[in-house]
Amino acid sequence: MKAAHRMKKILIVGAGRTAIALISYLVEKSEKNNWKITVADQSKKLAEEKTRKYPNVRAISLDVNDSIRRRKEVANADIVVSLVPPHLHIKLVKDCLAGKTNLVTASYVSEEMKKFHKQASEAGIIMLNEMGLDPGIDHMDTMKLLSKINKNGGKVYSLKSYGGGLITPESDDNPWGYKITWNPMNIVRAGSANARYIKNGKLKIVPYNRIFLDTQIVDVPGFGKYEAYPNRDSVKYRKIYRLPDLQNVYRGSLREIGFCEAWNALVRIGLTDDGYIVPNSKDISYREWLSAYLERVNGRTTKENLTKFLGITSKSMILKKLNWLGILNDKKINLKDATPAEILLDLIKQKWKFKKSDRDMVILQTEIEYELRAKKEKVISSLVVKGENFNHTAMARTVGLPLGIGVNLILNNKLKERGVIIPIHKDIYQPALKELAELGIEFTEKTVEII
Amino acid sequence: MKAAHRMKKILIVGAGRTAIALISYLVEKSEKNNWKITVADQSKKLAEEKTRKYPNVRAISLDVNDSIRRRKEVANADIVVSLVPPHLHIKLVKDCLAGKTNLVTASYVSEEMKKFHKQASEAGIIMLNEMGLDPGIDHMDTMKLLSKINKNGGKVYSLKSYGGGLITPESDDNPWGYKITWNPMNIVRAGSANARYIKNGKLKIVPYNRIFLDTQIVDVPGFGKYEAYPNRDSVKYRKIYRLPDLQNVYRGSLREIGFCEAWNALVRIGLTDDGYIVPNSKDISYREWLSAYLERVNGRTTKENLTKFLGITSKSMILKKLNWLGILNDKKINLKDATPAEILLDLIKQKWKFKKSDRDMVILQTEIEYELRAKKEKVISSLVVKGENFNHTAMARTVGLPLGIGVNLILNNKLKERGVIIPIHKDIYQPALKELAELGIEFTEKTVEII
Repeated sequence: MKAAHRMKKILIVGAGRTAIALISYLVEKSEKNNWKITVADQSKKLAEEKTRKYPNVRAISLDVNDSIRRRKEVANADIVVSLVPPHLHIKLVKDCLAGKTNLVTASYVSEEMKKFHKQASEAGIIMLNEMGLDPGIDHMDTMKLLSKINKNGGKVYSLKSYGGGLITPESDDNPWGYKITWNPMNIVRAGSANARYIKNGKLKIVPYNRIFLDTQIVDVPGFGKYEAYPNRDSVKYRKIYRLPDLQNVYRGSLREIGFCEAWNALVRIGLTDDGYIVPNSKDISYREWLSAYLERVNGRTTKENLTKFLGITSKSMILKKLNWLGILNDKKINLKDATPAEILLDLIKQKWKFKKSDRDMVILQTEIEYELRAKKEKVISSLVVKGENFNHTAMARTVGLPLGIGVNLILNNKLKERGVIIPIHKDIYQPALKELAELGIEFTEKTVEII
Repeated sequence: MKAAHRMKKILIVGAGRTAIALISYLVEKSEKNNWKITVADQSKKLAEEKTRKYPNVRAISLDVNDSIRRRKEVANADIVVSLVPPHLHIKLVKDCLAGKTNLVTASYVSEEMKKFHKQASEAGIIMLNEMGLDPGIDHMDTMKLLSKINKNGGKVYSLKSYGGGLITPESDDNPWGYKITWNPMNIVRAGSANARYIKNGKLKIVPYNRIFLDTQIVDVPGFGKYEAYPNRDSVKYRKIYRLPDLQNVYRGSLREIGFCEAWNALVRIGLTDDGYIVPNSKDISYREWLSAYLERVNGRTTKENLTKFLGITSKSMILKKLNWLGILNDKKINLKDATPAEILLDLIKQKWKFKKSDRDMVILQTEIEYELRAKKEKVISSLVVKGENFNHTAMARTVGLPLGIGVNLILNNKLKERGVIIPIHKDIYQPALKELAELGIEFTEKTVEII
């Protein structure tokens, strides 16, 4: 790392929703630390909007594909926080290696990113990933719980963790209980990578068209019950958390109860596919589109063909949800050469719009079961954060603050690890969880005996 | 095009199975035409094997990724026949443009290929694609039939076409009635691009997990009944054949009856997916792999869990086929980091091996319905070609000969079209079908009245 005691430069790339909480956190610490902050975005206007309140923060326009300017800005910084879409991180990784600049992201470590571990270690720099909410805070809380159980001599045999980007009950005004508070295409394509987890010591593989049926009910103490569907690869966490003998490893995403069976209907019909273009998508109606997937019976309406296909009655909550979404409408789709997923994306952007008066809510819950002195116990650790308002969302806060804390730890030389890392190390998660709690992001813990 | 009357040079890239019939066709015509033939393959040995009988044919080693040598060889040729995997054609396309060299392939015109139409036209060269069996001979026969109906004043309202790369009844010694006579990964992934066709004037979209259920029985006159499942995009043929008002447009692939319901079981379970790695694929058994997708009931065997999942009895032909394939075996998979599709590929390569004593069989059938003088008629045009032996397959012959005929037509300046084309033009399909018939590849036609 570069020499201490001088002014340090932070480059934030991407001025989207998450940037708000991150910038405000870093600005607050910048005077004491002698930090100079730059916020870069393809849209200079967006960068300026996010930094207007802070005269000492520099806002610039930067096209991530402009390799010359990008490389110059990265080389000039001590640390980069990348808020760009995950597939673009790798461009910054190469510049960081060239400029010996540290990097922090809130994204999963990709196979591509993993390959740079050795080079980054040798360059003496840190590439801290998965430093957001989920992945991020989830790792930290899990590691803290595991460390405590381990210290007491407990033997962990089950690890389950749930996360959800939802809305507050007061903002719920539609039959799905859901609105768009994060990347909408990721919502449409959720589950399409299939799911793998360990149940009772055995491998479970759940293909896409059964994922939203393979649900479980999760009770979040004080907040009620939610529904979880399995995330893509939970199996690898046996290795990451160094617990090769876990009998249960499961990570799931949370939705309102009833969401999953209705979304499963969309998947089963075929409306979430992104692999082909719907012929004539500009000129056909939503109803004609839906009808193309169903068996048409003479004299039956599309609604009747739909309920027949799904094996439900006309009173079903599934039908109510699908109908509300608009897939039975005679309105034209009006999208040229669109895939099914793109048509659905366009629909949910209208229907599940997060409105000015809405507030979001994020939930994380970790459930660990272990044996301690011949007894079985379960610890349930829960975090529920509600957004302040439309702009200051819980999502931006719970992703942005860990990123900011990561920057602070790195620039103040608090971490001994180098290379491509995630926050499972004690020198990261201990101070980070402590600071998050001070900022109001605190888990509630409950331990029960399993009889 | 280059000047006539001088020696013309033909470059064949790829010396796989299809090359045999193509080389022998071209060699036969080379003396009269003053052609010089070069066969290039990554493996010089393979190129030499295929040309051993022909002392005047040059065999060279050529790595398609070696752009300098590739460009030189292409520039030196008057025409290139590309037998490389479809995604590699584009490298040759660019060299052909640079060298003003014509190109012939048996592959579908990709979106990428399509973009070079203008450039190729302006360069005055021909890029003739879909000049094999299916696509290829199917286009030619369809265009011939349509032209005849049109000339008689008939109005076509339905167009169905079926194709299959199968084995002769005498070579059938397994419960699936199927062996590998073409690209085995394409067999595993068949249907994964979904299917779209027009039925009774309306769009039908069939997602992957229902494609092998959406079958129809096809009677091939004199050869018995087969089962067809729908191909990816049949809708576009309304445009290609300039018949925008077709009430039925369908293209399907043929299998032995009973194949599809069993293959559908593999798709439904999830064993054909290529999107993720099966955890620990090297060390688990086929049975453990299969079991990961099923609901495990205490005291029940994997076979029982499987029949329960599929809703079949233990006497079902589906179970017999799946069992024969080996997915219930306790043998280790022994493939590191394999996807489900890769595991299945490895299995079928063993189980569906095309043996030395086997003969393949290809089928093409076109069924066109039309109104003529207030009556409805249907013409059924069928082609069945059996392979001579293990090396001289029907597949190689029915793909290789159209390619050779395409070369002959182009080098003798018989075509007026330029740019990226397919054999739907009269100056291609008329002489090509005539020559194919002389070579024993001839359709049988039957017209019936529809009552």
